[in-house]
Amino acid sequence: MFGSPNTLSDMRQWPDDRIAFGGDYNPEQWPREVWADDMRLMEAAGVSFVTVGVFSWSWLEPERGRYEFGWLDDVMGLLDEHGIAVDLATATATPPPWLSAAHPEILPVDRDGRTLWPGSRQAWCPSSPVYRDLALGLTEQLASRYHDHPALAMWHVSNEYACHNLPCYCDTCAAAFRPWLERRYGSLEALNEAWGTAFWSQRYTAWEQVLPPRATTTFGNPTHVLDYHRFGSDTLLAFYLSEKEVIRRHSPDVPVTTNFMTMDHFRLLDYHDWAPHQDLVSTDHYVVDALEHPRSELSFHGDLTRGLAGGAPWVLMEHSTSAVNWQPVNPVKPPRETLLDSLTHVARGADALGFFQWRQSRAGSEKYHSALVPHAGEDSDRFREVCELGAVAARLAEVAGSRVEAEVAVLWDYEAGWAVDGPGMPSGELDYATAAHTVHRLLRDRAVTCDVVHPDTDLTGYRVVVVPTLYLVSDEAAGAIAAAARGGAHVVVTYFSGIADLHDHVRLGGYPGAFRDLLGVRVEEFAPLRVDEDVALSGGGVGTVWSEDARALDAEVLSAYGSGPFSGRAAVTRREVGGGVAWYLGTLPDDDTLGSLLDRVVREAGVAPVAEVPVGVEVTRRRSAAGSWLFVLNHTTEPCEVAVAGRDLVSRADVGPVATVPARTAAVVREA
Amino acid sequence: MFGSPNTLSDMRQWPDDRIAFGGDYNPEQWPREVWADDMRLMEAAGVSFVTVGVFSWSWLEPERGRYEFGWLDDVMGLLDEHGIAVDLATATATPPPWLSAAHPEILPVDRDGRTLWPGSRQAWCPSSPVYRDLALGLTEQLASRYHDHPALAMWHVSNEYACHNLPCYCDTCAAAFRPWLERRYGSLEALNEAWGTAFWSQRYTAWEQVLPPRATTTFGNPTHVLDYHRFGSDTLLAFYLSEKEVIRRHSPDVPVTTNFMTMDHFRLLDYHDWAPHQDLVSTDHYVVDALEHPRSELSFHGDLTRGLAGGAPWVLMEHSTSAVNWQPVNPVKPPRETLLDSLTHVARGADALGFFQWRQSRAGSEKYHSALVPHAGEDSDRFREVCELGAVAARLAEVAGSRVEAEVAVLWDYEAGWAVDGPGMPSGELDYATAAHTVHRLLRDRAVTCDVVHPDTDLTGYRVVVVPTLYLVSDEAAGAIAAAARGGAHVVVTYFSGIADLHDHVRLGGYPGAFRDLLGVRVEEFAPLRVDEDVALSGGGVGTVWSEDARALDAEVLSAYGSGPFSGRAAVTRREVGGGVAWYLGTLPDDDTLGSLLDRVVREAGVAPVAEVPVGVEVTRRRSAAGSWLFVLNHTTEPCEVAVAGRDLVSRADVGPVATVPARTAAVVREA
Amino acid sequence: MFGSPNTLSDMRQWPDDRIAFGGDYNPEQWPREVWADDMRLMEAAGVSFVTVGVFSWSWLEPERGRYEFGWLDDVMGLLDEHGIAVDLATATATPPPWLSAAHPEILPVDRDGRTLWPGSRQAWCPSSPVYRDLALGLTEQLASRYHDHPALAMWHVSNEYACHNLPCYCDTCAAAFRPWLERRYGSLEALNEAWGTAFWSQRYTAWEQVLPPRATTTFGNPTHVLDYHRFGSDTLLAFYLSEKEVIRRHSPDVPVTTNFMTMDHFRLLDYHDWAPHQDLVSTDHYVVDALEHPRSELSFHGDLTRGLAGGAPWVLMEHSTSAVNWQPVNPVKPPRETLLDSLTHVARGADALGFFQWRQSRAGSEKYHSALVPHAGEDSDRFREVCELGAVAARLAEVAGSRVEAEVAVLWDYEAGWAVDGPGMPSGELDYATAAHTVHRLLRDRAVTCDVVHPDTDLTGYRVVVVPTLYLVSDEAAGAIAAAARGGAHVVVTYFSGIADLHDHVRLGGYPGAFRDLLGVRVEEFAPLRVDEDVALSGGGVGTVWSEDARALDAEVLSAYGSGPFSGRAAVTRREVGGGVAWYLGTLPDDDTLGSLLDRVVREAGVAPVAEVPVGVEVTRRRSAAGSWLFVLNHTTEPCEVAVAGRDLVSRADVGPVATVPARTAAVVREA
Repeated sequence: MFGSPNTLSDMRQWPDDRIAFGGDYNPEQWPREVWADDMRLMEAAGVSFVTVGVFSWSWLEPERGRYEFGWLDDVMGLLDEHGIAVDLATATATPPPWLSAAHPEILPVDRDGRTLWPGSRQAWCPSSPVYRDLALGLTEQLASRYHDHPALAMWHVSNEYACHNLPCYCDTCAAAFRPWLERRYGSLEALNEAWGTAFWSQRYTAWEQVLPPRATTTFGNPTHVLDYHRFGSDTLLAFYLSEKEVIRRHSPDVPVTTNFMTMDHFRLLDYHDWAPHQDLVSTDHYVVDALEHPRSELSFHGDLTRGLAGGAPWVLMEHSTSAVNWQPVNPVKPPRETLLDSLTHVARGADALGFFQWRQSRAGSEKYHSALVPHAGEDSDRFREVCELGAVAARLAEVAGSRVEAEVAVLWDYEAGWAVDGPGMPSGELDYATAAHTVHRLLRDRAVTCDVVHPDTDLTGYRVVVVPTLYLVSDEAAGAIAAAARGGAHVVVTYFSGIADLHDHVRLGGYPGAFRDLLGVRVEEFAPLRVDEDVALSGGGVGTVWSEDARALDAEVLSAYGSGPFSGRAAVTRREVGGGVAWYLGTLPDDDTLGSLLDRVVREAGVAPVAEVPVGVEVTRRRSAAGSWLFVLNHTTEPCEVAVAGRDLVSRADVGPVATVPARTAAVVREA
Repeated sequence: MFGSPNTLSDMRQWPDDRIAFGGDYNPEQWPREVWADDMRLMEAAGVSFVTVGVFSWSWLEPERGRYEFGWLDDVMGLLDEHGIAVDLATATATPPPWLSAAHPEILPVDRDGRTLWPGSRQAWCPSSPVYRDLALGLTEQLASRYHDHPALAMWHVSNEYACHNLPCYCDTCAAAFRPWLERRYGSLEALNEAWGTAFWSQRYTAWEQVLPPRATTTFGNPTHVLDYHRFGSDTLLAFYLSEKEVIRRHSPDVPVTTNFMTMDHFRLLDYHDWAPHQDLVSTDHYVVDALEHPRSELSFHGDLTRGLAGGAPWVLMEHSTSAVNWQPVNPVKPPRETLLDSLTHVARGADALGFFQWRQSRAGSEKYHSALVPHAGEDSDRFREVCELGAVAARLAEVAGSRVEAEVAVLWDYEAGWAVDGPGMPSGELDYATAAHTVHRLLRDRAVTCDVVHPDTDLTGYRVVVVPTLYLVSDEAAGAIAAAARGGAHVVVTYFSGIADLHDHVRLGGYPGAFRDLLGVRVEEFAPLRVDEDVALSGGGVGTVWSEDARALDAEVLSAYGSGPFSGRAAVTRREVGGGVAWYLGTLPDDDTLGSLLDRVVREAGVAPVAEVPVGVEVTRRRSAAGSWLFVLNHTTEPCEVAVAGRDLVSRADVGPVATVPARTAAVVREA
Repeated sequence: MFGSPNTLSDMRQWPDDRIAFGGDYNPEQWPREVWADDMRLMEAAGVSFVTVGVFSWSWLEPERGRYEFGWLDDVMGLLDEHGIAVDLATATATPPPWLSAAHPEILPVDRDGRTLWPGSRQAWCPSSPVYRDLALGLTEQLASRYHDHPALAMWHVSNEYACHNLPCYCDTCAAAFRPWLERRYGSLEALNEAWGTAFWSQRYTAWEQVLPPRATTTFGNPTHVLDYHRFGSDTLLAFYLSEKEVIRRHSPDVPVTTNFMTMDHFRLLDYHDWAPHQDLVSTDHYVVDALEHPRSELSFHGDLTRGLAGGAPWVLMEHSTSAVNWQPVNPVKPPRETLLDSLTHVARGADALGFFQWRQSRAGSEKYHSALVPHAGEDSDRFREVCELGAVAARLAEVAGSRVEAEVAVLWDYEAGWAVDGPGMPSGELDYATAAHTVHRLLRDRAVTCDVVHPDTDLTGYRVVVVPTLYLVSDEAAGAIAAAARGGAHVVVTYFSGIADLHDHVRLGGYPGAFRDLLGVRVEEFAPLRVDEDVALSGGGVGTVWSEDARALDAEVLSAYGSGPFSGRAAVTRREVGGGVAWYLGTLPDDDTLGSLLDRVVREAGVAPVAEVPVGVEVTRRRSAAGSWLFVLNHTTEPCEVAVAGRDLVSRADVGPVATVPARTAAVVREA
């Protein structure tokens, strides 16, 4: 069963007795005769929890104030009978047609002034008071009706906030943006200073003059755009908190969450602001085929989600058994890929494995999105694989509640990402995530586990701190990073970090202003590289993405540029500082070159790999008071050997001193 | 002369005494002194018919209710004097500026809410009652004035319906969409069921809530989008019928048509619904340079047009003597290409060869579109070629009224195409036409002629029935296809056929639901391939576009996947059923591999080639009670030999027993 | 000092005593303590002029009618104290937020009906009377306050007109377009004839029916689109003239200019109409990295700017010391590139070198645009380079006022460019500039200097006249070109020239109508080539971009097509005519082939190179009554030798008889 939280501190422990297994359940799509079959198959698959009601508003409240809860009562009862815990959604993610028809002013408007109409999902303006009032009304109904239902295990507020209705540029948002700015800046003088309105005649002399950064003649004001990102994230967080407050009033001891989207292509919300307000951090993750390294991205975002949860276990609310249907072409997952994907999430700290969705739709927008029960039905390889995965999840129960071990921190900051993507930057091809993902991937290849955390995180205890493209940084965070180095850590700073303050004002006198002293490096000018362009490095290999006119004023040059406009200038440097070392990368070296450098960094820092494994085999360790578990994910097409002894919970075999993990499968070894 | 239809049955026989030759004539673009020259040159070129008035509204009715028919009277008289038949347009394809200025509510609005303004052509909303009333008013004037004009041979309603004003998403269309839906579904309950509104909270509780599938947050509801295609086609068909009714009242015995656009890139109307309402099926066809096989596409669409005409001769209303001016770069037709293009249309059933336009404009939007009389004037290779073509058309008179022979049917369904192009499909790269065009092309290379017909067509008599990507299919059509196999036909079904019903609801239990039993194949999951991706086939060659987790439950596996996620599964199968055979292609093999398979299919089916010819030489046969004609189109740069004896109407020579057709020319042999 | 103009004829001589050096100065971006530092560094860098106030409206008039001139008074005073001339902007380029908020009707609207909001720059409709009144109000204030300020040297009206607010399609523009058309055409009949409205039912019967060429169903009417370009250019010219008139009233003897943008990617204004209204022609130029030959483009546009100035010296108002920040990726200028760029402008006639901007912003939209003082501050290679460049500029004082020598004219016409880019052309890939840039580049490689001038320019005295893609041409200009040939010049006409008259009506009877007799060539049909397509040439090499069905009726065929649809037809021809020769290029040959042809043309025409130099070394000569100066710009990485004797003003050394110019630097030799 799905925990039984009574107090907030209890909630935070959930689930401590199993790896929960289940997914979104949308019985309203099916005639009732299918529901009994659902129960039978859920039992067969080992489903322990389902999320109900995510898109049910139009079925729960078909007209304003008229509710139809009968079907949901029946569903809740049925699930309770079968011992399946319910993560009950507030159903407020998407308004019913009657609401949009009665209140077209709730429709979002994009940057080009284009209204986004109903016909899909989430067509509501994040600032709309009308929408909020009606959403809170439904939440109130649900919370008061089901707060003491025996099947209820968790509240699921809205769904994938910001996934498709942010940013909105409508007049309602314009009106809400102004008081947000007034709270942030206090005065127009401060706003004008922060936004640098002396440029391009943008000085505001009344709050009413301020608008969202709508479509304009050419590129806009970067701080204006940055603040609009902040405003959007804050607006939806306030929405979430208002729903949570309604629930809390009726249901004080059931955990409340909303499912994040910690995926590479989704960076619309500052989840570091949101996470403290989650009783349990939950997220969705889908593998994107267009990525060069899709499984490394999966691991990265597992580590990021764990970072958001402060190291605690987290809930994978949604992933997919096979293809999605929103990519240009949607490849399947070949046999065993789902097992590897799911256990990678557990290896990175997930204690629950949810899928979208239980039964594949026969109609509608996502009918070609894979599910636990495919169109082909139970007599299918896919459903047999699901049953096997459910059984494995059950066998991993003892892992629940344990924590992942890591000695390396990779800093991640959504605000820095927003600023890097802003208008008028040195390179429009620079992606905020590239350096972070690359370093993380190469360390993962070396069996080194990273926590992905916010710059404001306490860095004490990390042997290595990676600062990738931290373009925007506060004085405090920069100071803490320097202090970590002085305290003995190895700090690895990459290009385009520490350039600006939180207003996106450049720190003058030579880049990278916030880290110039720490690194002993001064950069006079950037020379971003074109896609497919590279520069030679004197230490071997090539650099891509970035290069600079950098001089080592007080640092050892490990590699200099061997070509390009700043040939001879410093590309990679190292400086001993206090008990630690500050490393600088002014470019992104090729994998081999950067890998060798990281080998040196972890060696000098005394970070040992989790285990000795070949590339393509991913390992992490989870540990609790009860023991430790080595996760071995063999992504290769050959069996691999790992020095570990204990009980493999996947194969239910005792292994050791060397365990052999077959090709394309996983072992989870309770270490002897 | 251009027929003299007295009764509807007569009309259907038109033209039985010649291959008509002519094109759009727009004398209003030129001073009157040019008109006499036009008559002289038309005579020289052998022009027997012209279409007049297509874009003349603003010249016929320069302000509301004030008409200027004098110039048209003169043009009609002049043409009559010269024995040139007139296909008289209703001139309602494009409103005059005064109409748009007085009624801006008629302007179409695109999916993004963008108004489409005047300045080009056809800027009118298909649902607009204002526009319809004014268009019918002009039609009334024309019909009553010219119905008994001796030059009048045919009525040409509007022009290229839907070419550029469909789909429209304006409020007028929204209001018209609702009663259309009410007629289709009867109740909101039925609509909700058909559209699968249980997903994403889309349940409608009042008709007023329904909107066009306008720009929305992410992808929309596929059945909503599909129904909007149907609504658009039906709306314009109703418009056509209302114009036709006005004409019929005044002019009961003159054939009425509107020119279709049976071209690969135009699929906005369901011409299978439209064709029964044409007294003569007419179409426009332009060669698109960007296609990989532009001339195969031409042949395909000739066969499709003939299919629309129920096998009867049809009118090629427009094609071009050389370059068009709406492609990114507009290549010319090299010498003799026009002859080959034109005779390909005749070879596929055309009895009239029309061109856009008679005299190349010196100003305006299409001044760089080629014409019968080029900018260079009559002293030009192009005009000499036109005269030659006119003479050839005259010599083909005896062919008129004959029918093309075919033993193979290729099924084509605009609705299936709309559904395949809909949102949220397994692959956004899948083009509905690919399988149909490829099979048709390879059969054409083998001198096998196909009819391209709707799935509801009576399939009796076809030896081979090809079912290419017939994603959406009714139970009735699927049953008829199976019956054809049981009755002795060879049915060739390709990937992504029979998947959904007409509501786009997936047929459950394993794909391809509608053809699972017929084929003896069950597919558990799709694995669409990326552009440029392929999979090995055990029988040789590679597959592209698509692959699947397919098992042959009751079929012989001719080829299995040799790579990809479903290596080992069935790719190509064969099952004997009743007197016939059901073949299945789960992927699109390369040309050689698919060609070999088709060789086997036609051999087993007893389909003989029209003639033995090398690849690049296209042959068809037309036959009537009076005899048969072998069309030989030598697209190659070498002379070719064909075993045929008789009189070649092109070269005016007796040929046989083996005829030699020179490089890049054509023979039309009345078989001895 | 910056001239001291007393009369208009004086103004035209400015600056005759130095090469001015400076740039945009935006002190309002910085606290006052920085200003003193600015003065110190300007002195160090040799800055002699600055442009002030370009984007200062919101700082000068923070609310309607309330002015804050104190800070500007102080800035002007400070500059005066330091002997720095001021080019004072009218500050009307970008409205303050209060203005847009009070008058949203001034916002521009794009072709798609999308409003362009504030948040960037220049968000104002060119036709807005409200905006014009308020702009003239500010201009009045500035002109009356500063007209006799001792620092004032020049007035800078607005900024980069049309850079981002043209074309605007709003209702205000629609209303202004109609009287403009009425003035142009006199009657609707004339408009209908000019626009060819007989096509596509576009006949206008009242002026109110005419609209801007807004988003429409498919491509629009070319003459309508062309006239909208003309209207836009005229509208902004009228705006400029109204500002100039206000200034002239207060400040009759100070030169007035507005900075053009003579760059390849900016062709929105017909600067040939604008130039006569400039007391000094000034322009901005930025190197665009995406171009294949960015430095040739720089030279071309120097020659074009000189052409606009009627051969007189001109002001380079803005260029950049290094990277800009509006390209996809913004590469730096490697060391010495700035020197070469700047001196290339002087070599082409610039007497002033301005930069955007003095001090690199720390905030706002262009903070990553390079400047004279970089973020790194005065202790930087970039600032040291700036000081060196300032010193060189000072040493070139004697060059000021001299004129560049050229014997070749390349014709350039913005209207022809608009027409070539218009809808419905034979090729959408044809770029108006390609032929002009290519011929200019190959002549520059041969040390031959060209004037780039309008077709209406007096061509007397030019030995060679190049007519590149002069699609649109008046009878008068065509006649003058033919007269030049008869008078002894070598006229080189390229493909797609002389095709249409100024209404974009095709000249009938065979292309190229306007030049058919001159060239002795008649073209029956165009065959534009696809990107990456070429045709063989019998004379060697290949042609790209274009080919034709051309016959030499009275000309020598130098090269015929050896492949393609018109194999055998004339590609390159030559005809002796009167005392001169008419050459025709129906295609664009590869560089080697075209280069050989140009070698022959200049040899036959008796044009000698400026000097014998290797490719990659650019040379021009400026001459005045006081002497002559040879500019040698060595773009290569090797030293080069040039036969010249005299004083090199750059190195301050006497050179000759052969001077050696080091790699990647320049010499300016006052010839002995």
